[in-house]
Amino acid sequence: MATLLSTIHTPDDLRKLTPAQLPALLTELREYIIAQCSENPGHLGASLGVVELTVALHYVFNTPHDKLIWDVGHQAYAHKILTGRRETFPTNRRYGGISGFPKRSESEYDAFGGGHASVSVSAALGMAEAAKLQHINQQTVAVIGDGALTGGLAYEGLNNAGASKANLLVILNDNNISIDRNVGAIHNYLVKMTTSARYNRFKRKIWDLFGNNCVRRAIQNFVTTTKIALLRRSNLFEALGFRYFGPLDGHDITQLTKTLQALKYIEGPKVLHIITTKGKGYKPAEENQTEWHAPGKYDRTTGKRLPQSGTSRYQDVFGETIIELARMNPKIVGITPAMPTGCSLNLMMEQMPERTFDVGIAEEHAVTFSAGLAAAGMIPFCNIYSSFMQRAYDQVIHDVALQNLQVILCLDRGGLVGEDGATHHGAYDMAAFRCIPNLTIAAPMDEIELRNMLFTAQLPGIGPMMIRYPRGRGAGRNWHTAFMRIGVGKAHQLHEGLKVAVLSIGDAGQQAAAAVRRLAEENIHVSHYDMRFLKPLDKDILNTVGRSYRTVITVENGAIIGGLGAAVAEFFTEYHYPIKVVRLGIPDRFIEQGSIAQLQAECRFNEENIYKTVRRCS
Amino acid sequence: MATLLSTIHTPDDLRKLTPAQLPALLTELREYIIAQCSENPGHLGASLGVVELTVALHYVFNTPHDKLIWDVGHQAYAHKILTGRRETFPTNRRYGGISGFPKRSESEYDAFGGGHASVSVSAALGMAEAAKLQHINQQTVAVIGDGALTGGLAYEGLNNAGASKANLLVILNDNNISIDRNVGAIHNYLVKMTTSARYNRFKRKIWDLFGNNCVRRAIQNFVTTTKIALLRRSNLFEALGFRYFGPLDGHDITQLTKTLQALKYIEGPKVLHIITTKGKGYKPAEENQTEWHAPGKYDRTTGKRLPQSGTSRYQDVFGETIIELARMNPKIVGITPAMPTGCSLNLMMEQMPERTFDVGIAEEHAVTFSAGLAAAGMIPFCNIYSSFMQRAYDQVIHDVALQNLQVILCLDRGGLVGEDGATHHGAYDMAAFRCIPNLTIAAPMDEIELRNMLFTAQLPGIGPMMIRYPRGRGAGRNWHTAFMRIGVGKAHQLHEGLKVAVLSIGDAGQQAAAAVRRLAEENIHVSHYDMRFLKPLDKDILNTVGRSYRTVITVENGAIIGGLGAAVAEFFTEYHYPIKVVRLGIPDRFIEQGSIAQLQAECRFNEENIYKTVRRCS
Repeated sequence: MATLLSTIHTPDDLRKLTPAQLPALLTELREYIIAQCSENPGHLGASLGVVELTVALHYVFNTPHDKLIWDVGHQAYAHKILTGRRETFPTNRRYGGISGFPKRSESEYDAFGGGHASVSVSAALGMAEAAKLQHINQQTVAVIGDGALTGGLAYEGLNNAGASKANLLVILNDNNISIDRNVGAIHNYLVKMTTSARYNRFKRKIWDLFGNNCVRRAIQNFVTTTKIALLRRSNLFEALGFRYFGPLDGHDITQLTKTLQALKYIEGPKVLHIITTKGKGYKPAEENQTEWHAPGKYDRTTGKRLPQSGTSRYQDVFGETIIELARMNPKIVGITPAMPTGCSLNLMMEQMPERTFDVGIAEEHAVTFSAGLAAAGMIPFCNIYSSFMQRAYDQVIHDVALQNLQVILCLDRGGLVGEDGATHHGAYDMAAFRCIPNLTIAAPMDEIELRNMLFTAQLPGIGPMMIRYPRGRGAGRNWHTAFMRIGVGKAHQLHEGLKVAVLSIGDAGQQAAAAVRRLAEENIHVSHYDMRFLKPLDKDILNTVGRSYRTVITVENGAIIGGLGAAVAEFFTEYHYPIKVVRLGIPDRFIEQGSIAQLQAECRFNEENIYKTVRRCS
Repeated sequence: MATLLSTIHTPDDLRKLTPAQLPALLTELREYIIAQCSENPGHLGASLGVVELTVALHYVFNTPHDKLIWDVGHQAYAHKILTGRRETFPTNRRYGGISGFPKRSESEYDAFGGGHASVSVSAALGMAEAAKLQHINQQTVAVIGDGALTGGLAYEGLNNAGASKANLLVILNDNNISIDRNVGAIHNYLVKMTTSARYNRFKRKIWDLFGNNCVRRAIQNFVTTTKIALLRRSNLFEALGFRYFGPLDGHDITQLTKTLQALKYIEGPKVLHIITTKGKGYKPAEENQTEWHAPGKYDRTTGKRLPQSGTSRYQDVFGETIIELARMNPKIVGITPAMPTGCSLNLMMEQMPERTFDVGIAEEHAVTFSAGLAAAGMIPFCNIYSSFMQRAYDQVIHDVALQNLQVILCLDRGGLVGEDGATHHGAYDMAAFRCIPNLTIAAPMDEIELRNMLFTAQLPGIGPMMIRYPRGRGAGRNWHTAFMRIGVGKAHQLHEGLKVAVLSIGDAGQQAAAAVRRLAEENIHVSHYDMRFLKPLDKDILNTVGRSYRTVITVENGAIIGGLGAAVAEFFTEYHYPIKVVRLGIPDRFIEQGSIAQLQAECRFNEENIYKTVRRCS
């Protein structure tokens, strides 16, 4: 079937269409995304919300000469499809396929890669300043969601962009939601702003002006009119040095293209505030935006999500256990930066709203706020995805560890995360946090260990503790067991053997255990220790290992450099055990997307490779 | 001499004074600070600026029950003197003495420790929420400077505090300067706000209301009056959900105490904006605020700073070299987050203003902005103190390294920094950044290596590179030499010997070299290699060392865990060299303040201990 969409190979083709053809293209684009995501799961909701914006941007701006920077980037499916990746889109987020996020190495239309929130304004400002310095006449556009606006980096970017004379257009894509409902004062402010009569009057005014043909002159008139002077004082963005336009219906393609066209002629930093609906054009996704953020597979006709079955997820263990602990210990509170559903703190939020805090996309604040709570006698469990905890590295050092406060840093999504790829793998936590004094670092091998580490962390006399566990489902253990204190810094032997010792930490121990079992079936017995704690290390066990084995294989779902393998190597060389250490884990390169099994195989710490490695060494 | 000040042992004593006695106390306090700092250098300017505020806060609030959180904290000298540390104040910032920053373990009046900027609102919000949960009737006050307000963490804190119902008073100490002049849209906004007639009218209005005796009722009337409703819409802080009061002369003790007293009765989050002068009450410090931020020793009578002589500082090498490079290479730009004088980028800022960017206290933005510049073809040198680069850990991974962009991350103040103490030591950079793919990490042993590393970093084909160098003066080498490319990942042998090899990185190589020279005089010859690069490691040299020596001593001015010693241990255990590695560096605990020599001795990587360690091993 010859569709309009199939004729669009690059934005140049798009720009040949008449404005009257755009609505048909929008429908096709939306249907293509809905169909594709039903079979090949992805970030459906956000991408459906910006279909009009994406078409309008490429229609109006001269991409890739003009620079378009998407914040987070998981909303960029229409962008990918329109910029030469329609045919490869079925490989979206798959191993060897295209990334689910913008990626510079993938396309010249991806001006700046993404994955984490609140980045786009700073990156775009850099590109705008570079254009100015190189005398390149270029438009630079950053798209940022209202959720990402709560991140400190976004504010730092706005503060600098507003003071600059850079020719930068920031599009505030206001859909009133991150993954969960947005929170914070900025959120309240935007809601008020959007609903206020004043702004609605202003909105009509601007469209009246845009309505006539002398767009450029009209804009100039408009800008010098007293209305905008009045507005300047009343607007957060104006306070930050931006010219503010909007709010505007982000699904009205005619208004969008006209407005963007007009804004090209306004120099300096400016914000266009558009209102969109996450999941727009697909009813189930509009109606339940959190579930349909990344819905997995679904039947596109019935709108039914296909059931995901399996054992408990690690996040469920966290979510249920913290409620049990909080019932026993009134000091416990829970903190999440915009990930209540993602980390399952939503369970506690429902039952104990006054003892849980969703602070929005604000990892730095989440940790320092937790430190404040702990300094005043509470025991905060601060749950942050590992790759996002990179944002709070300083706060962990400066506010938590240095003051030796009992903050429990729960790092969900530690290690390989699968389809989200390079920006989201929690590869660096163990290596980066191991050097921080006072900090205990634990990683559970299964659900029961996670549960008991959470229990242990809140006991009296425990200082700052990091508990790091992976994305996805556990080992299938029945973990609704009585709480047991785990000895801090105590490892645990799972199998006894000769010649080779396998030392694993965290969930990678499952792969190691499977390999050890397989070897045992072949009558090759090697020792396997679940280290449990990266810090403090179990020196008794390491001395035993040092005395008894010639080869040690370390296995971890984290960067090989600096992690468990490094800790063990430090120990053996310090005490002069002449041992060969084979370190298995995430190698020293960025790992792209794929299923976790595919990526474990690529990184060579899957069962098969552990098995082979032991065989080679024993 | 029986002064008023000498009768103040705790704030309880202060609170016994009559309002009429306060001005005399302020004078004494100021004189004491000026006298003390003239002999024992410290952060004079900021502390002089908040003498009235400090007295007013302790006079009005019931500290330590009420919580007072200072942002950064180097302005807290008056606070320390009034809270039982008058007699130990002469040991301020000295080895074994009191810290130059608030510190929980030092005093119950230091509700939350400090050192880094933009922390106080988040920490205070945590403490306010904890009080609410524990049903403690408590006032919580965060003091934050206008400079720190540009940091993303401050905004994240305000955004959350504004949406909360927490009883939190934020005092915006607006002195119009950080260390250098403030920048950014917020800065411009505050200046406009302060000078605008509207606010001055408002200001009179509020004092009229406070003037009568029925303070409480007046405030309640005031809050419900239409005036505040009008104002709500026009103020950045009101947009963030705060009630805004001010601006107010922060040196008017009467107004300050009255206002603070009144604000106690206003529930919820509120901002009091006060205008202060950095260096207030000491003319030289008022007149040259940047120089007198931390002036070193001075003659308090003449106001002359005592000359500091010595060899070039590492920062001078950076500051002068980047200008030379920028003249040769038009792609080069310089970025600093609020530290132009501290890192000597001010030299380039004077000569090439359009190619330098002071982005304010905003380390995350500094790095992402640099990545944006690099993505658009520029070569940014982004200079950030090591301990502040902890703030941009995610941005280095996500925006720079993952995209393999040629951003040169210059980490000044790497390693022990001396009197600033635990919050400021750049201890963790090498350990934390070593695991990041694509990143080259170099550390120069002297001025010439720094210069040539800077040169090498901007050559074509070099990816992201981190160059890490210490605070203070160099080795005294004549470094105005012709540029030479340094081989990336190539170490350099300084001395040949037997049995023991000393591997050093960075400036710690100077201590190692001195020890090796001393040993040579005793006819003990050991090998000494200046590794130059932490990453990539020079594997050829390590293989040579592995084959030739039984003991290796690594020396680094950084955390022992995870740094050079770990990298070397990883290598030797991987290739099965049965070598003992003795790792010298910063041990696994937080190191307090003192002279760099004292701290090196404490950490045992000074010449003396390296000498002894080698003797023991050889």
